[in-house]
Amino acid sequence: MQPPRNPDCIFCKIVAGQVPSQTLYDDADVVAFLDVGPLSKGHSLVVPKGHWVTLDEVPQPVSAAIGGLLPALSRAVVQSVGATSWNVLQNNGLAAHQVVDHVHFHIIPKFKDTGLGIHWPTGRLDTNAAVALRQKITAAMGQTVQRF
Amino acid sequence: MQPPRNPDCIFCKIVAGQVPSQTLYDDADVVAFLDVGPLSKGHSLVVPKGHWVTLDEVPQPVSAAIGGLLPALSRAVVQSVGATSWNVLQNNGLAAHQVVDHVHFHIIPKFKDTGLGIHWPTGRLDTNAAVALRQKITAAMGQTVQRF
Repeated sequence: MQPPRNPDCIFCKIVAGQVPSQTLYDDADVVAFLDVGPLSKGHSLVVPKGHWVTLDEVPQPVSAAIGGLLPALSRAVVQSVGATSWNVLQNNGLAAHQVVDHVHFHIIPKFKDTGLGIHWPTGRLDTNAAVALRQKITAAMGQTVQRF
Repeated sequence: MQPPRNPDCIFCKIVAGQVPSQTLYDDADVVAFLDVGPLSKGHSLVVPKGHWVTLDEVPQPVSAAIGGLLPALSRAVVQSVGATSWNVLQNNGLAAHQVVDHVHFHIIPKFKDTGLGIHWPTGRLDTNAAVALRQKITAAMGQTVQRF
């Protein structure tokens, strides 16, 4: 079955070869290329060939293919640019900084002055609320968890 | 072959059941649980059972298992907390905000006032530099790219 395409989507155009990119990797399900608006040298994108807007829509084998690529591609990217720290980031929804509505994982090398800026205002997990939330999420997964 | 363990690592202790957690998912290779220092309601972690410090060290089948879990777990988390936007983030190295030295993927629901804070100072990809960088990265991958 052919994966979905959106003729107006810039990443679908890259997948179809209608828009050029600096391709880093290419297989049946996944393509990777340099981001044209990089946060740092080596900033790369890993993209499923099918047009899925958010990660929850991606078929399991495709997301497994993306996951399986991340270690080797991360290693190649950071070695090539001489970084020792990096972020892997995937944004879903405008509020979460998603700009192109086609799932993509960023690999962003971190240097002293360039890379992803992160603000990390932690809270505290309330145990009673956490138990209820865990039950809700595991029920939504529809899978038996072996151990709590 | 048993995956590596580090007896001093908090996530290895969670994997071993020596430290309690609100477990969301558990299989041979991967465990997921609620973050005890959440950025938002539903902030969850997906962790390989083996002790690998950064993503480049994770064996391909394990990273594929993590990748394959992300859509279903993301869906369950955001449905359960009523979010429509979320970030998936994996940090490598202290400079990139890695705090626990055992690979973990964050699933962080984004709400108006809570969630991941992102600063995104984009640059521009210089074409000549990009071609050289692409050649370096693909050579480091040691794989033939089908198309450029």
